[in-house]
Amino acid sequence: MMLYILKANVDTSLLKEKLNRSSASYKFLNLYGKNLLLVWPDQYAKDIVDDSIEIAVNVRKSYVLSSNDWKKEPTIVRVKDTEIGGNKIVVAAGPCAVESEEQLSTAAKGIKRAGASLLRGGAYKPRTSPYSFQGLGEEGVKLLRKVGDEVGLPIVTEIMDTRDTEIFKKYVDMVQIGARNAQNFSLLKEVGKIGKPVLLKRGMGNTVEEWLQASEYILLEGNGNVVLCERGIRTFEKSTRFTIDIGGMIAAKMMTHLPICADPSHPAGRRELVHSLALASVAAGADMLLIEVHPEPEKALSDSEQQLTIESFEVLMNRIRSLAQALGRGL
Amino acid sequence: MMLYILKANVDTSLLKEKLNRSSASYKFLNLYGKNLLLVWPDQYAKDIVDDSIEIAVNVRKSYVLSSNDWKKEPTIVRVKDTEIGGNKIVVAAGPCAVESEEQLSTAAKGIKRAGASLLRGGAYKPRTSPYSFQGLGEEGVKLLRKVGDEVGLPIVTEIMDTRDTEIFKKYVDMVQIGARNAQNFSLLKEVGKIGKPVLLKRGMGNTVEEWLQASEYILLEGNGNVVLCERGIRTFEKSTRFTIDIGGMIAAKMMTHLPICADPSHPAGRRELVHSLALASVAAGADMLLIEVHPEPEKALSDSEQQLTIESFEVLMNRIRSLAQALGRGL
Amino acid sequence: MMLYILKANVDTSLLKEKLNRSSASYKFLNLYGKNLLLVWPDQYAKDIVDDSIEIAVNVRKSYVLSSNDWKKEPTIVRVKDTEIGGNKIVVAAGPCAVESEEQLSTAAKGIKRAGASLLRGGAYKPRTSPYSFQGLGEEGVKLLRKVGDEVGLPIVTEIMDTRDTEIFKKYVDMVQIGARNAQNFSLLKEVGKIGKPVLLKRGMGNTVEEWLQASEYILLEGNGNVVLCERGIRTFEKSTRFTIDIGGMIAAKMMTHLPICADPSHPAGRRELVHSLALASVAAGADMLLIEVHPEPEKALSDSEQQLTIESFEVLMNRIRSLAQALGRGL
Amino acid sequence: MMLYILKANVDTSLLKEKLNRSSASYKFLNLYGKNLLLVWPDQYAKDIVDDSIEIAVNVRKSYVLSSNDWKKEPTIVRVKDTEIGGNKIVVAAGPCAVESEEQLSTAAKGIKRAGASLLRGGAYKPRTSPYSFQGLGEEGVKLLRKVGDEVGLPIVTEIMDTRDTEIFKKYVDMVQIGARNAQNFSLLKEVGKIGKPVLLKRGMGNTVEEWLQASEYILLEGNGNVVLCERGIRTFEKSTRFTIDIGGMIAAKMMTHLPICADPSHPAGRRELVHSLALASVAAGADMLLIEVHPEPEKALSDSEQQLTIESFEVLMNRIRSLAQALGRGL
Repeated sequence: MMLYILKANVDTSLLKEKLNRSSASYKFLNLYGKNLLLVWPDQYAKDIVDDSIEIAVNVRKSYVLSSNDWKKEPTIVRVKDTEIGGNKIVVAAGPCAVESEEQLSTAAKGIKRAGASLLRGGAYKPRTSPYSFQGLGEEGVKLLRKVGDEVGLPIVTEIMDTRDTEIFKKYVDMVQIGARNAQNFSLLKEVGKIGKPVLLKRGMGNTVEEWLQASEYILLEGNGNVVLCERGIRTFEKSTRFTIDIGGMIAAKMMTHLPICADPSHPAGRRELVHSLALASVAAGADMLLIEVHPEPEKALSDSEQQLTIESFEVLMNRIRSLAQALGRGL
Repeated sequence: MMLYILKANVDTSLLKEKLNRSSASYKFLNLYGKNLLLVWPDQYAKDIVDDSIEIAVNVRKSYVLSSNDWKKEPTIVRVKDTEIGGNKIVVAAGPCAVESEEQLSTAAKGIKRAGASLLRGGAYKPRTSPYSFQGLGEEGVKLLRKVGDEVGLPIVTEIMDTRDTEIFKKYVDMVQIGARNAQNFSLLKEVGKIGKPVLLKRGMGNTVEEWLQASEYILLEGNGNVVLCERGIRTFEKSTRFTIDIGGMIAAKMMTHLPICADPSHPAGRRELVHSLALASVAAGADMLLIEVHPEPEKALSDSEQQLTIESFEVLMNRIRSLAQALGRGL
Repeated sequence: MMLYILKANVDTSLLKEKLNRSSASYKFLNLYGKNLLLVWPDQYAKDIVDDSIEIAVNVRKSYVLSSNDWKKEPTIVRVKDTEIGGNKIVVAAGPCAVESEEQLSTAAKGIKRAGASLLRGGAYKPRTSPYSFQGLGEEGVKLLRKVGDEVGLPIVTEIMDTRDTEIFKKYVDMVQIGARNAQNFSLLKEVGKIGKPVLLKRGMGNTVEEWLQASEYILLEGNGNVVLCERGIRTFEKSTRFTIDIGGMIAAKMMTHLPICADPSHPAGRRELVHSLALASVAAGADMLLIEVHPEPEKALSDSEQQLTIESFEVLMNRIRSLAQALGRGL
Repeated sequence: MMLYILKANVDTSLLKEKLNRSSASYKFLNLYGKNLLLVWPDQYAKDIVDDSIEIAVNVRKSYVLSSNDWKKEPTIVRVKDTEIGGNKIVVAAGPCAVESEEQLSTAAKGIKRAGASLLRGGAYKPRTSPYSFQGLGEEGVKLLRKVGDEVGLPIVTEIMDTRDTEIFKKYVDMVQIGARNAQNFSLLKEVGKIGKPVLLKRGMGNTVEEWLQASEYILLEGNGNVVLCERGIRTFEKSTRFTIDIGGMIAAKMMTHLPICADPSHPAGRRELVHSLALASVAAGADMLLIEVHPEPEKALSDSEQQLTIESFEVLMNRIRSLAQALGRGL
């Protein structure tokens, strides 16, 4: 794949003519303030010469826009005032599912006090069983918006259906793609079009390369504000719910300019392990953490076993703070 | 979960009153010609007593309607005149992707001549990379309908987006859910509502139990015509594209009344292995096979390595026929 | 790696001089009636020219002697009168563990009557827990020899320790390397030196390539009588004990000249699945099956859940016979 | 399984009589300065009553002596003056393979200077291919002893064969069981008898539970000085050589009183990832690290890609020191 960075404010009509005469596929897009042109496959792409081209990069990867072959500096994703991918570690926390205004409000105040920067909570819930609590849907999203505004935290929540994009455009600060939709390419494209920052989870059966290719679907819509979130993969080991792939997460960080997030709650599957996995993720180099916190975990309508109490989350935040400082980072 | 089979033509208004007074969740539905009532959780469900109830079954599984705890006889799924799940092994074949009318027509005539019962072909294509051929979309579906009618074969093709249900309702005989949407629960619900037979692939990172729970989303919409399709799981082994889980497929067959299909093409990843995996699947007990066949595999726009030529498919069909007879089944 | 097939009855003293003068590593050995010379690495090996060399093959694989790059015809492994790797499918059967003479004798007569060609039984037992029955050891091997002779079946049993080679040399017809010792390289070398046919199981965490490399340790000792046995790998799926890798088994068959065996008992983990996995293995192309059969499975001291009764084994043998005939093979 | 802690200096002759009259299996052993008695299975074990019994614990696990059901305080394993399992994090470092006295000596001085407490180096090398460098064997062990003594570091190296125990008894301070022999039960028993501290790696295809059961074979020989070492498991992900299972490692720590070690070098498979995995392991709670360091990694005869230079190791040690302090631990 040839990636061309074009000069600013130049006429590309001649370039387009050349492309149309060739047998190549191509796409113009604006990303990170740069005018880019992608041309493929290589055999046609290499013939393209034009005055409007400033830099040409031959990206020999299956992921292109998300690769750091052409963009060396790390991307910083801004969710309102919060910067993800800079020196500070960002923590998003909140309940697995939004259950009521009271539950959400208590959680939000608790995590804010402890130092979290984003409020998370599931409104549309992808549940393995149709007989499990399916989430409050649109009502849940509106509760998140209300409580987020009251407490002063931007909100992140999961989208499951291409038909719901208007709701997310209207109410949500950061759109999450869950592990089960990590290769739902229709949804990835639509989320790219919403234009809001995206938290893209890795599928439990997906390789790091496939994860980066999934992000490519979003970037190709001109939306470069993607944070990649590791949440554990499927392996033979059963003492944890999933196997958090710290190595794969760091391998990804070396392959892309996008920030990396870790979700220690889902791979842990039980509270006692969440602290260790959170600290390990930060020590390895994660830019962000996504942690499930519930005012009363034992009464939670989903993932009851793995949600932290607010008290335990406070302790964890203090430990993360010390660790981040030892690593030359902040919280 | 309590599953109640209700007497035919009885008044259930009293029963509904009792349910509404209880703290139980419940759902009435008609499936396989029977009026069913599901009530959960168990602690409330067991109190329900009513004259309208004929049989009560306590299904202690995470999948209920798809379990053979309550329906012992195997379900036969009818796609036009083809019966899946009976004594005869059903073969669906055709190209990975619909590329042109000529390509599809040649493939369709070839597979029909060789003895296939259904025409498969991808129109909406879930591709790992956004730079790969994405399929012909609606135009592809219409080509399938046209060629299927000309050749006299019902058609099966994959749906990727909840917004496309009208197209599938209008043109398609059997709706396929692909591996990457195996836990796209919004899509599963919508496909349940279409009412057409469904070919439900197992996700590459999903357990057998999760696969049956996915089918539950479809059955719960009153659509019992689901065929479960094993297509290989993600493991550490790299000499094949995926690891076909023959054991898991047969374990599933013992857990459900639904028919079981095997896709030998995707786990093989290369032509030379497809025959062996197809024969192994039939010997193990598969009711149906889904096989990629292309008139000129080396020119295919996707999965070029694993598609069989028409000639090779004919040879395979003859081998399957012998095998089926040896097992007391037909083709 | 360069593999040279040398002319018969020629003087190699000059060749040895050349090799000693070079910086190459080399090894002479006699395998399958041929004088072979291996020289590596390639940069030195390619310089070797000598009149004693008949054929030179550059094997670009991590496994060399087991590769079919140089030996196209399938290897037939003879265990007394039984030929493994020919047209006939060979079945080895018997109890998981030798428990008593009576148990073994009953099993041996039953499996012989049903058409099995080899008697299997564990004497040295690799048990996950030190508190489980550890096998009868040397006494068990002697019982196998006695019963095998009485019934007229050659015997195959597992070796676990390099210090036991004399016992196996004296009493055993075919030496089994178990899955847990699949990369016990000291043991592989010693078993190569015993000179008896070897049944080499694949490790539960080993790739097909590593399995072939393990066989290389045995062949390099001049022992070419190795049968490769697939017995299931570790995956995330838990509805079966292990995931039988039919695809990997057939991929191996395409990479090597050695015969391939399948063990359907261990991946099944429960009786009901053994028939299906055995039939699938034969349909895929296995040359041999290894099946656990116990006169009274419910009383077995190990693997009670997965051993077949003699009656069930008889039924299975009849099904295998029909299947083999349909495939143009015998039993 | 019943575990009885016996009173000190009491006569157990009567107890032995009772055990012999029962149908139970039993074993007396001295571990951690305590006289223990194991009796199983439970139905017989519970009848045992005797004055010599101080405490009775019913351990309902597949691992017993290694379980913290009966021994709550963490075990500290002493290798000469080094304590593993206490507050200080212990680092063992050195080359993958001992290649020469000069190489080993340079490495040893470098890692000592940087703060490592143990010298590691492979003498008997378990190599996937018989054509790879197989290690210096006994000569390598002697070099380790010599260099270890000169530099003042205890040594840890891998044993592969039950016939080599005398060499390890004579020269080695800590005996390593490698991943490929993690279920070589003959070797585990013999290593238990040597009586030296043991570093027990987890097999690449083994569960945490199987790993603890493997340690049980060693403890049952009366050798309680076992350190458990996580080194990565086999998964579908290929961007790293193995998947380090930080979650499983911490799950193990919660199940046992034995100290836990992490090997970041093998799962990384390449230098750039080793730092991150080492730091993550310490943050998660590892008591010890095992790191490959080579004076000239690019010239190494094995694992060239993943060995750190001495300079890089020094940087890593400084980072580990900061991290350990932030966690309230030392180095």
